[in-house]
Amino acid sequence: MRAAVFRNGNIVTDNIPDPVPAAGQVLVKTLACGICGSDLHARKHAGHTAKLMKHFPGRKPMDLSRDVVFGHEFCCEVLDYGPATQRRFKPGTRVCSVPVLLGASGPQGIGYSNDIAGGYAERMLLTEPLMIEVPNGLAAEHAALTEPLAVGIHAVAKAGIRGDEVPLVIGCGPVGLAVTAALKLRGLHPIVASDYSQARRALAEKMGADVVVNPAETQPFTAWAQHAEMTPEQKAARPPFQAFLPPLKPGLIFECVGIPGLLQQVFEGAPRDGRIVVVGVCMESDTSEPLLGVLKELSLQYVYAYTPEEYALALHLIAEGKVDAAAMVTATIGLDGVAQAFSDLANPERHTKIIIQPNR
Amino acid sequence: MRAAVFRNGNIVTDNIPDPVPAAGQVLVKTLACGICGSDLHARKHAGHTAKLMKHFPGRKPMDLSRDVVFGHEFCCEVLDYGPATQRRFKPGTRVCSVPVLLGASGPQGIGYSNDIAGGYAERMLLTEPLMIEVPNGLAAEHAALTEPLAVGIHAVAKAGIRGDEVPLVIGCGPVGLAVTAALKLRGLHPIVASDYSQARRALAEKMGADVVVNPAETQPFTAWAQHAEMTPEQKAARPPFQAFLPPLKPGLIFECVGIPGLLQQVFEGAPRDGRIVVVGVCMESDTSEPLLGVLKELSLQYVYAYTPEEYALALHLIAEGKVDAAAMVTATIGLDGVAQAFSDLANPERHTKIIIQPNR
Repeated sequence: MRAAVFRNGNIVTDNIPDPVPAAGQVLVKTLACGICGSDLHARKHAGHTAKLMKHFPGRKPMDLSRDVVFGHEFCCEVLDYGPATQRRFKPGTRVCSVPVLLGASGPQGIGYSNDIAGGYAERMLLTEPLMIEVPNGLAAEHAALTEPLAVGIHAVAKAGIRGDEVPLVIGCGPVGLAVTAALKLRGLHPIVASDYSQARRALAEKMGADVVVNPAETQPFTAWAQHAEMTPEQKAARPPFQAFLPPLKPGLIFECVGIPGLLQQVFEGAPRDGRIVVVGVCMESDTSEPLLGVLKELSLQYVYAYTPEEYALALHLIAEGKVDAAAMVTATIGLDGVAQAFSDLANPERHTKIIIQPNR
Repeated sequence: MRAAVFRNGNIVTDNIPDPVPAAGQVLVKTLACGICGSDLHARKHAGHTAKLMKHFPGRKPMDLSRDVVFGHEFCCEVLDYGPATQRRFKPGTRVCSVPVLLGASGPQGIGYSNDIAGGYAERMLLTEPLMIEVPNGLAAEHAALTEPLAVGIHAVAKAGIRGDEVPLVIGCGPVGLAVTAALKLRGLHPIVASDYSQARRALAEKMGADVVVNPAETQPFTAWAQHAEMTPEQKAARPPFQAFLPPLKPGLIFECVGIPGLLQQVFEGAPRDGRIVVVGVCMESDTSEPLLGVLKELSLQYVYAYTPEEYALALHLIAEGKVDAAAMVTATIGLDGVAQAFSDLANPERHTKIIIQPNR
């Protein structure tokens, strides 16, 4: 079968062996697969991240000196079943799945493995019990956005929202947009979102941001504070020893960029007692000033992925039109277009989410 | 009056002007004052921390090119009152106070100010409404331990304890010991505590640690995991997608060391979903690997100081004998002994808490 293969630092289109489903596995045709920022980063930082894997006994790091077929944001069509399966869905059924393949040797991450192909290929293997059916005749290109939306749903679920927070979303790439959509679903207002790109800010408004900020013009935390002032009742209810603090509602900051130095900027700008949810995946060492965290009593919650339930919820929210996922898609391409897409995605004005249709 | 003055990088005994209480302030005689690790660190890192103060508008950084009289862990005796006071306690009454002086120019931190003397002096100024009376005839040297104990009480209060956690206290200096005492009061068991010093480990056991670890011999997180295994019922109740994770109870890690690199060690060793409470005050830049935080979904809560209520609770816990604070005191000295004490405290086998009696 054809696949866009990551080989020696480049994406090349090549033929690779057809996958064969083992016990409990399903052979599927890849209808649509999103290109994730993590795929772009993996190319640059795989050496460093492989070293960190020694802290996760049992996990096999991806070896980028060997071929890898990326792709963990997919929607597929059932083709055939391996042994020991219940054949829950008829061939032709459109399905999504959390990107984990269960096999005899334990779980493997689909899209970050040397042994199995991800969604940048014509066909792939899924785990039968993890598959869910795509409802409402939803287009495969939009069902493929389930994974990034689930990331946002999970991040907001882990934020421990009490209802009185004013959220600030830093970075409006697909992760920040998914967080914004999930915050809107939780009814939190105003949602403040910041990004240097005008196109991304416009998308953030579409996904639910009430206030958008260009950090080149306005410091995001200054903009946040303007929309976070306590009500007179809240001011009056403060304990006396807090009377010297600025009268601001609780700050809930979603870091959705994931580059070194960003967290230090958040430490500098965050209000006292600020809660920071780290959704951006920084794949390099990062340096910050812990004293700022201490004196402000900041908290950080690092988040990763989602539960199967959150993933299923994300798919249904898209299918029911509760999240305008389609707005994020800026191009659909074939396997031959993947190499070009990797460089095009460097320009945030032009692209947000590019969807690969491996069989077109 | 006499004071141990921090001047040009050294502690010298000198005469400084007697303090005069302004409106709302009280003149007190300093009976006892503890030497805090932050005092030792301030000497080394004041330049760096002063630069960070630009992120706290309105706070005046301490200038170590000018004289400073340290001391924020004190017990005093009321001498006289300034104007606009209610004279709540008779002269001779023993009192403690959170180390904040309220004045016309706003609040000042007692013990870290160029303008007012801390507890390393014969007399000082307190804020009348913040003073609390020392109960039960408690010795001043033990009442002076209220402040460090309050730090532990506050850290445990901010940890969001649910009751099923197994805590690991890293570092058994005064902060780690106070955390251990506060955990014991919360009834959490087993408490695992680690320190390189045999003397400190013995103290940790006295304060409530059930298991003590020498990191030179045993990796603290390995020791922790041996005492954190889930019950068979807990194992059975896990959702299916967690079946591949080690069957461990929730990890609650108190970082009570505060040196660069320590947090990265915690990131490496912490279990999945580990909650880290950062109580140690690292006054330098620190570097860690955010990807470990992400993949393990760690959370961090930086904590600082305490509320006035927590401070008052700490005093009463000591006075009622519920915390054996006296066990922490390894020496009492006069003002002339402070310079020597600053170097003696470098040896954890010899000293934990040294109490200054400025009027002896």
